[in-house]
This record gives sequence, C-alpha cells and structure tokens, in this order.
Amino acid sequence: MGLKAIFLNCTLKQSPEISNTRALIDKAVKLFEELGVESEVIRVVDYKVKFGVSSYEGEDDEWPLILDKIKSCDILVIGSPIWFGVRSSVTQLVFERLDGTYDEGDPETGQFPLYGKVAGVIVTGNEDGAHNVAANTLFNLTHLGCTVPPNVDSYWVGDAGPGPSYIAAGGEKHLYTNKTVRYMVNNLVFFAKLLKNNPIPTNIKRLYEDALTESE
Amino acid sequence: MGLKAIFLNCTLKQSPEISNTRALIDKAVKLFEELGVESEVIRVVDYKVKFGVSSYEGEDDEWPLILDKIKSCDILVIGSPIWFGVRSSVTQLVFERLDGTYDEGDPETGQFPLYGKVAGVIVTGNEDGAHNVAANTLFNLTHLGCTVPPNVDSYWVGDAGPGPSYIAAGGEKHLYTNKTVRYMVNNLVFFAKLLKNNPIPTNIKRLYEDALTESE
Amino acid sequence: MGLKAIFLNCTLKQSPEISNTRALIDKAVKLFEELGVESEVIRVVDYKVKFGVSSYEGEDDEWPLILDKIKSCDILVIGSPIWFGVRSSVTQLVFERLDGTYDEGDPETGQFPLYGKVAGVIVTGNEDGAHNVAANTLFNLTHLGCTVPPNVDSYWVGDAGPGPSYIAAGGEKHLYTNKTVRYMVNNLVFFAKLLKNNPIPTNIKRLYEDALTESE
Amino acid sequence: MGLKAIFLNCTLKQSPEISNTRALIDKAVKLFEELGVESEVIRVVDYKVKFGVSSYEGEDDEWPLILDKIKSCDILVIGSPIWFGVRSSVTQLVFERLDGTYDEGDPETGQFPLYGKVAGVIVTGNEDGAHNVAANTLFNLTHLGCTVPPNVDSYWVGDAGPGPSYIAAGGEKHLYTNKTVRYMVNNLVFFAKLLKNNPIPTNIKRLYEDALTESE
Repeated sequence: MGLKAIFLNCTLKQSPEISNTRALIDKAVKLFEELGVESEVIRVVDYKVKFGVSSYEGEDDEWPLILDKIKSCDILVIGSPIWFGVRSSVTQLVFERLDGTYDEGDPETGQFPLYGKVAGVIVTGNEDGAHNVAANTLFNLTHLGCTVPPNVDSYWVGDAGPGPSYIAAGGEKHLYTNKTVRYMVNNLVFFAKLLKNNPIPTNIKRLYEDALTESE
Repeated sequence: MGLKAIFLNCTLKQSPEISNTRALIDKAVKLFEELGVESEVIRVVDYKVKFGVSSYEGEDDEWPLILDKIKSCDILVIGSPIWFGVRSSVTQLVFERLDGTYDEGDPETGQFPLYGKVAGVIVTGNEDGAHNVAANTLFNLTHLGCTVPPNVDSYWVGDAGPGPSYIAAGGEKHLYTNKTVRYMVNNLVFFAKLLKNNPIPTNIKRLYEDALTESE
Repeated sequence: MGLKAIFLNCTLKQSPEISNTRALIDKAVKLFEELGVESEVIRVVDYKVKFGVSSYEGEDDEWPLILDKIKSCDILVIGSPIWFGVRSSVTQLVFERLDGTYDEGDPETGQFPLYGKVAGVIVTGNEDGAHNVAANTLFNLTHLGCTVPPNVDSYWVGDAGPGPSYIAAGGEKHLYTNKTVRYMVNNLVFFAKLLKNNPIPTNIKRLYEDALTESE
Repeated sequence: MGLKAIFLNCTLKQSPEISNTRALIDKAVKLFEELGVESEVIRVVDYKVKFGVSSYEGEDDEWPLILDKIKSCDILVIGSPIWFGVRSSVTQLVFERLDGTYDEGDPETGQFPLYGKVAGVIVTGNEDGAHNVAANTLFNLTHLGCTVPPNVDSYWVGDAGPGPSYIAAGGEKHLYTNKTVRYMVNNLVFFAKLLKNNPIPTNIKRLYEDALTESE
C-alpha cells in the first residue's frame, strides 16, 4: 500500500539557500522511507503563490500545482519557521489559499478535499514560539478535514533570545527533537494506513441539513 | 461495544448556577445518546482540585476522582468558556494536573494513559476567542496522547464586544454551532470505535531509545 | 505640533478591491483629522514586498518605501483581517521585514528606529480571532520599540462561523467598535504628543553592557 | 516622587516552595530599588482567591486584599510560569477577577481603576511559550487601562522539551534575560513618572456617548 507524504516547507528563503526547517524535515523523510512511505518536499516560496483565499488567483498563480500535490497525498506535514513568536507569513499564506478547498466539498458526503488525510507539523526557530505555531497549524488542519494523531509535532528551539538556528546550534543532536520526530512519523504512518482502510463515513451534507431543521 | 464519553465542563460557576457551556455540551450529549454512546458531564469547579502539576497534590485533593473518570473514557471533550480571549483558569488547571499523566507511561510501550482516547472541544463566550481556546486545547490533548479527528470543535460566540451569552442570545438556534456539534459527535464516535478495534501500536519507549543513540 | 499617523492596511486584496479593514481604518482617519493629526494609509499588498527578515531584500523590493514612511510617523496603526483565527500573511510579512530594524539601533542609545512611536491595531473579520491578532501584533510592536497606550485596539467580528464581513453586515453601526475606535484615537494622540515632548531616555546600549557584566 | 511597583507572582506553588518566577522577579525588584522604586511581591496562590469574574466573590474571598494593592500601585508586573505553552491557571484567574474592575469606572471620565498604571510581564518556563504568555498578558492589561512601554517583557526559557528550570539551569546568568529585565525596569520607571505628571485625560464616558450617536 504505497503511502505518500507531502511536506510543505514554509521557510522564507528561496532555494538554494540553506533552510533549517528543511534539515529537520529531512529527518522525517528518512524515517518515512524506513517505513516504506515516499516523501516529497515542496519549498513553497520557490513557487509564485499569490495572496488570496481561493484555489486559483488568476494568471501566473502557481498555487494549483501545490494544491494538486496536497490533494494526492496521504500524509501532510507543514514545516514552519518561527518569526516574532508565530508561524511564518508563508505558512499563513498556505492556509489562506487552503480556504478555497472548503468550496470543493464532495457532492455526496460534503467532505472537503483534505478529509481522510493525516497531518503533522515541524517547527524550527532560534527560540520560543513552537507551541503557538503547532497549535494553530494543527487546529487549522483539522478544520480543513485532516486527522491529527497523538504526538505529531516535532520542533527545535534554542533558549530565550536570539541565537544560532537549528543546524548551527547542533540541534540535530537534540534528544527531545529526535524523539518526537520518531513519534510523529510512526503515528502518522499508522493512522494513514488505518484511514486508507477505513475511510471516514461522516456525511457532512446530511448533518448540515439536520442542523438546518434544528435551527429554524 | 459500549463507548463512553466524558465532558469536563470548565466553567467558573459552581452548581447549580446556569452554565452556558453546559447548554452546548447538552446538545452533544443528546447526539451521542442517539449514536449509543453514554456520556458523563463533570463540572470541575464542583470538586476541590488543587493547583499543581502532579496527579495527586495531597489531602483533600479531589483531582484523582476526575482523573479516574478520564482514564476510563473513550472520548474526552473539554468544555471551556472564554475569558479575556483565552480559555478559562479552570481549563488551564485541568491541563496542569494532566501533566502528571506523563509520568504514568505504560511499562512496555511507554504510551501515556490518554493514548488511544479521542478528543474534542466545546467553547462558548459572548465574543471572540474560540479559535485560540480550541487550538491550544486540542493541541495539548494530542501531546497527552489523544487523537483529534477532523471538525471536532464546536463553539458559539457573539459579535464584537460584551453582549448576551449563548443561552440568552438564542445561540441554541445558531446554525453554524448546530452543524459543527454534529460533525464533532459523528467524527468522535467513528474514531473512538476505530481506535478501540485498532489500538495504536507505537512503542514510544523503543523510539526514545533509538533517539538516544542518534543524539549521542 | 504636526503629528503624523501611518496605517498599514494588511488586507490580502489589491486596490481597487473593497477592503473591509480599510472601512474601519477610515473611521480612525476621520477621528485623527478632527484632532489635527494627518494620516496616510498604505495598502501593503499594492507594493512588491519580498519575503525576508532584512530591511532590503534586493532589486525590486519595495519594502524600503514603506519602511521610510514608518520611520517618519509618530503613530503606527496595523490594520489586519483575520484568516483561520490569526492575522493575515501580509501582516506577518510586515513584521518579518521589521525584524531588520533591530540592526539599526541608534549609535549612542541603542534605541531601535521604532522607539518613541505610539502604536495601535485595527482588526476585522467575519468571525472570531480579533484578540489573537491584536495581542500578538501589539506585543510585537513593543518589542520593536513602540509604546502601547490603553485601549488602542479596535475590531469588528461577527458571531460564530462564516458570515458577512464588516461592511455588508452593517458593522459600521456597531456600538462596541465605534466606541473603541474613539478610545484608540484619543489615547494614541495623547501619548504621541507626550512622547514627542518627553522622549524615552533609556540607554539600551549601556544597559546591555551592565547585563554583560552580570552574566559573565 | 515615591513610585510603587506591585508584582503578582502567579506560580502554582505555595510558599515557602521555591519559585523560579520569583527568582527573576527578584532581579527586577533589585533594579527598581536602585531607581528608588519600592516593590511588593504578592504570591497569589498564598491567598484564597475564588474563581469568578467580579471583584468580590463572597465570604472567605481574599481577592479584595490583592485588588486593593493593585489599585494603589504605579507599576504592575505580572509574573507567570508557562504550562502547556500558555500562562498558568493562576495568572488566568487573576485576569478573570480583574474583569470586575470594568464595572468601577470613574464617575466623571469613565476610566477604569487601572488607567494610568504602567505594566510589564515576567515569564519563566523550562521551554517555549514565553511570547504567547507575554502577548496575551500585556494585551489584556491594556484593555484594563494599563500602558505598555517598549520592551517590558523579560523571560527565560530553556531549549526544546522538558529540562531544568530557571534557577537549576543557571538562567540567572543568561544575558538575554538580564538585558531585557533592565530594559523593562528602566522603561517602566520612566513611563510611571511621566504618567504621574501627565495623567491620561481621555474621557471614555463622553466618547461612548459620541459612539452611541453614530451607531443609532
């Protein structure tokens, strides 16, 4: 059963600049590989993604290329740096564009395109803010239809104040981060298989109609 | 397969005062009942729960009574009012006390006591803050071992500024809230059954040891 | 004493599209005018602002045009829509770019370029998230050197779930928002005058050296 | 001009247990003393403070003792530990109780009791969450009437994951924290003097009436 993982690396830096978030993503990619899961890492800022809240924002908008990949994956992992204590503008841009998927509900069940996908988050910053980034990001993903297994956030941050980033600080040897990236990968794979074999049956459309009746 | 749901109502008001959060919880209880799931609603502030971060904080501490119920449920729903844009002190107190469960990992797998439970959140406030409450609360629950299915937050808030609360404002007729409480209940029940039949196999303990090796 | 206010409208929509956030900004502009304060509203997305964390990100980067205006103002107001419960990607982009100002401390006092400016925030969304946007935005501004007087956030949000935005919902008649925009404008003007006559004397550079000694 | 600073230490631990947050507070106290400002540190959990949102929650409620001290200070600093990425339940309890002060507006100006006070925040945690705690706490304080000068947050956190707390980790030698506590103290003192000599003149009551007219 070929599972596919997509990582959206939401660093601010275009290729080929070194991305710290990418370095932690690579650990997850390697672990996925050991479990037979194929990964693709997309650096969002290498694409021309326009600001907006629909799935297509006109000529030259390359978001549809990314959205297609998202729709075809089983496991979606958002990788974000921290800036000013919160997720990067590129991460936020990704969510704004995913807003468009709410309009693409399945004609029968009403389920959004991300229903049935399993999601996790990877965060790096030189200090403080990982909980904030992870909490908002995972929550937003559940709204869009994703399932969030236990312990599917992995992050590295240094101590208070400015300082070296993940790679320069030797974060790749940090036990907590190395532990949690393993928890994340294993739980994502278990749930992705489980949901592939047991699709969520909830009929959003019918439930909406029940709610309409109650709300009159 | 008798599933059991526990709601922790984290209102600031002791019984028998009217709790708006309870009114929305009751909608979920009724929907669970229709799907054959038994519910118990615990108003935390009716118990003597001491401040602290362990599972037992000494004589007169009634947290162990609540913790036992949490450990025995399949579905855990946190109900929180919003104050100053964030979750109530009672909700935060519950999480601080749940910190103690990290020390009670399964001897073989290392899984925490909340592993395998499915979680959701209910929020009411007279205005603004539901996303913040839901995001932090669901994220914290995943850290403790819970699984978060899609669309398992249901909330009601009025428009900007002070105003009537859920019951007085007629929130019980609010379509969005009535829709989302249905999504929540149906997805929680599906996942609770799924995980009961397919326990999460991840061996946290072994993965920790792998991480130790990598981090040396 | 000619005071100058700069509004950064961080809507996702380019001119000439209608911006709800702009409609609320316009109320503040009018009130400033009544108090003799001149305003300029900048729609950030109309400029080519590159992703990054410095004050100049290479050819075609129009951020320096905006930064010059920010540096010359007395009062800085960030206007942000809410998307997914948090501030817009454009707002976050603005802060990432303002990170560059930390490197431009005054040679003598070490004060950053935004020291001595007074700041406020305007938020609109069809629902929930204003506290989150305002809290992070005002806090980030204090880090950059701004002073935050009491009651300098003004926001409009509708009740739970999708719905009409500020203009379509008749938010312009919403008492709470109309009240708080007045509090904001009056307190910003009082503090801007106060700080113009009484510049902050704190010598950041000297305090840093004291801290160095203590930390050895 | 005798300025007075009040620190609310919102640790979960009762006296005489060692509080890490207190250790950082003590640094600020010493710096205030050097500038001629008298400090009082209140450990909230040593008082019987009831849950609620009014200024008096019935017999045995010791909140009024704390509130009196808050009302009489010039500088208010909230000290909070981080638990689960956010501020402690005791900190949140303090804000819920401060909600009661909104009802005590000055008969003439409508200004709340905290108007004219200057506020800062101190945060300690073994890891991640300081931005979240500081942002919400300072924002809530501005709503209650406080002024927030630049750089009035001082925090210490260790790197990602569980680990030693402030004292055990040698945080008292951490340059960033030692630097920011100095920025905080100096800016708080400057602004406290400034506002004592130049009280905020804003008439909230009159502005409310103007808003009423506009909103009809």
